[in-house]
Amino acid sequence: MLEELKQAVLEANLSLPKHNLVTFTWGNVSGVNREDELIVIKPSGVPYSELKRDDMVVVDYDGNSIEGNLNPSSDTPTHIVLYRNFPEIGGVVHTHAPWSTSWAQAGKDIPALGTTHADYFYGTVPCTRPMSSNEIMGNYELETGNVIVETFNTFDPQEIPGVLVHSHAPFTWGKDPGEAVHNAVVLEEVAKMALQSYQLNPTLTSINQAILDKHYLRKHGAKAYYGQNNGGNE
Amino acid sequence: MLEELKQAVLEANLSLPKHNLVTFTWGNVSGVNREDELIVIKPSGVPYSELKRDDMVVVDYDGNSIEGNLNPSSDTPTHIVLYRNFPEIGGVVHTHAPWSTSWAQAGKDIPALGTTHADYFYGTVPCTRPMSSNEIMGNYELETGNVIVETFNTFDPQEIPGVLVHSHAPFTWGKDPGEAVHNAVVLEEVAKMALQSYQLNPTLTSINQAILDKHYLRKHGAKAYYGQNNGGNE
Amino acid sequence: MLEELKQAVLEANLSLPKHNLVTFTWGNVSGVNREDELIVIKPSGVPYSELKRDDMVVVDYDGNSIEGNLNPSSDTPTHIVLYRNFPEIGGVVHTHAPWSTSWAQAGKDIPALGTTHADYFYGTVPCTRPMSSNEIMGNYELETGNVIVETFNTFDPQEIPGVLVHSHAPFTWGKDPGEAVHNAVVLEEVAKMALQSYQLNPTLTSINQAILDKHYLRKHGAKAYYGQNNGGNE
Amino acid sequence: MLEELKQAVLEANLSLPKHNLVTFTWGNVSGVNREDELIVIKPSGVPYSELKRDDMVVVDYDGNSIEGNLNPSSDTPTHIVLYRNFPEIGGVVHTHAPWSTSWAQAGKDIPALGTTHADYFYGTVPCTRPMSSNEIMGNYELETGNVIVETFNTFDPQEIPGVLVHSHAPFTWGKDPGEAVHNAVVLEEVAKMALQSYQLNPTLTSINQAILDKHYLRKHGAKAYYGQNNGGNE
Repeated sequence: MLEELKQAVLEANLSLPKHNLVTFTWGNVSGVNREDELIVIKPSGVPYSELKRDDMVVVDYDGNSIEGNLNPSSDTPTHIVLYRNFPEIGGVVHTHAPWSTSWAQAGKDIPALGTTHADYFYGTVPCTRPMSSNEIMGNYELETGNVIVETFNTFDPQEIPGVLVHSHAPFTWGKDPGEAVHNAVVLEEVAKMALQSYQLNPTLTSINQAILDKHYLRKHGAKAYYGQNNGGNE
Repeated sequence: MLEELKQAVLEANLSLPKHNLVTFTWGNVSGVNREDELIVIKPSGVPYSELKRDDMVVVDYDGNSIEGNLNPSSDTPTHIVLYRNFPEIGGVVHTHAPWSTSWAQAGKDIPALGTTHADYFYGTVPCTRPMSSNEIMGNYELETGNVIVETFNTFDPQEIPGVLVHSHAPFTWGKDPGEAVHNAVVLEEVAKMALQSYQLNPTLTSINQAILDKHYLRKHGAKAYYGQNNGGNE
Repeated sequence: MLEELKQAVLEANLSLPKHNLVTFTWGNVSGVNREDELIVIKPSGVPYSELKRDDMVVVDYDGNSIEGNLNPSSDTPTHIVLYRNFPEIGGVVHTHAPWSTSWAQAGKDIPALGTTHADYFYGTVPCTRPMSSNEIMGNYELETGNVIVETFNTFDPQEIPGVLVHSHAPFTWGKDPGEAVHNAVVLEEVAKMALQSYQLNPTLTSINQAILDKHYLRKHGAKAYYGQNNGGNE
Repeated sequence: MLEELKQAVLEANLSLPKHNLVTFTWGNVSGVNREDELIVIKPSGVPYSELKRDDMVVVDYDGNSIEGNLNPSSDTPTHIVLYRNFPEIGGVVHTHAPWSTSWAQAGKDIPALGTTHADYFYGTVPCTRPMSSNEIMGNYELETGNVIVETFNTFDPQEIPGVLVHSHAPFTWGKDPGEAVHNAVVLEEVAKMALQSYQLNPTLTSINQAILDKHYLRKHGAKAYYGQNNGGNE
């Protein structure tokens, strides 16, 4: 069941170490089948080098394991909250990639400091508020999802396909698992360059709206003209 | 047509990932045939791993596609402005290489802080002024070229074969596509070391004229004595 | 004798360069056989590329060489002190990995700034006090062990499986040589991200106890639920 | 002639890119035959991937080319001054390795901040004074050697086998070309960690004499006990 999605989720997980986004098993990718309301996700704590398609775990929207012999990622409840609340997304990625995580640990938003950022994120990548002790001691992974959704009360998850969870690390998403990984790579690169730009100029602020519009909209939406398939994403 | 130039442009594009200058498709190289006023450039949004010689797009000085089934790089109008205004150059490179881009995002010139810089850039590598909203909302890529040319009112593009576009990223050039890539690699290395030198000594200023002259002129011009082909570039 | 432990120690030593933790021969791993009170350790100054299982040196708890033709690592007395004083540990690693060593040279503890840290270290990774001239001029490597043990008067070596030796470099440990290397990799990653987080926010302090508890205890101890073997380490 | 030395110089040059110390052709290694007062050095501007043993150039102590069809490295006069003034050395390396070069550009000495430094450099690695315009405009490469020698009026080149040339880059040396490269690798690692330690603690000063003595002397001189060949270098 869901063989095609399992293969996509497997490949997306395997691409994390190729892009130097993970140490050991510190990352996971999932994908969703919207019709059947089923999620395919990496098993918990299995090394990437040993992952096979049939190790992927299928869970429903309540987190019940539907297929697979392994425990799903311990972050599964966070993924579920994102799928439930962001209806347009098809894949979710969580890593502890070092530059993005350094920002999350610092508890700071990443403002759009240049066109690399604007090509993918239509404005600031927000950092969530710190979670409360009650949230942490309760259903922690589900509350992690809730604090992300709360943060996106004032952001559009399609325009800003990623977030920094305070004191923790990034989550990104996309229309499918591959695009969610793509956005994780971009976020890491953007986080690195933003830190370095601040070292050169600590008083930097976000680029202006005109250049943000120009770069985001030349790659996204009806008027896009980047790449070979205009009118959409590259 | 232009098979040799296409091959050179292909190889120069493929060397970008080898030198770790690009993430995904974030870079492009072009070359020019001055006699026929034709430019060969990478197609837009095609992964480097799939690029073939015949994917290269031929455009004229007005940006009309002359040969090739793919869309040319969305940055083509910038390249054209550079070829039109810098008559000695034969190749242009644009990347979002992280150290150079960090300086561009910070909106700062890179002063010549050492001999590595002086071996290739005869003084400060300038950052353009920020582009106006009108320029951005108008013919953006062409105006990007214009703001580079404006910056070089006070610089010689042969002596300073590169620039940082404010809030964006670097462009470099050279006598052919390969040399333009070579200068992109140098600029990235120079940008990294300059940032690190400033962390050690925030009050640094440019090296003096004598050492700038010595290093630049031992590798460039009639009195060069570096390498095996004296009287020219290494 | 101790063929299995020798093999484990060999493999753990060989994994140091694979994880980019060592330059030249700057690192060593040992393992202990608690029943016989014998330690297996890398020989001193032998390149990793030439190491074979039978080069591993066996020493007793007094540092006497019991088997092997080569000199044991010059750091052997430090390892012995750790095995004598931390009865639960089965492997010890010493490296000069650059990010961890940068903190050791700065003489600073690494506070828990995020969940990556909390997943493995249940609070601050301490830096020892500077060693006195007498300690240095005396039995230096043994005194290095003693100053680590002194530091752990107020820490639990099972909860904090690593330390920074002031002006020197990190030591880590674990239930076996492989886990000790695993913790060395984590410490290096944590050290890198902590430095970067401080660059973004110099006033950072440790994460709160709730999130420290949550992350440490979901991977360690009776209530662990991370991975496929619950109730223990991943 | 000097086939063995040529081979050693070739191998030392080829090891520079393996240790990530060079970009393009930005580095050179030489070796000396003290009996015949002949120096073997890399040719100028030849890519490492094309270097062969017989490309190595033989020059005498006055810089005359004795054998080889290629121009010797433009830095040859600097190497000669070092061989003439430091009678114990057998190999010299020059690179623009980025961390070391960042310190040279900052014009700052690298103090001994930890034992990694002390294992190889018996105290501060000095940065030369800036060269005067007359020195630069005169016999520049020879004067570069002279300013290094002047710097070592107050240092022992056997105890401190390296230097930063102000606004330029490092030179290192050793008893043969291989050891000179080894010291170049160490200096680069030491430079990186020292910069990072200063970011964590800007008021750091050198480690004390006791630990400097301990680490340097356990690897060097009559009382050395590191490695398998005691009483000498590792």
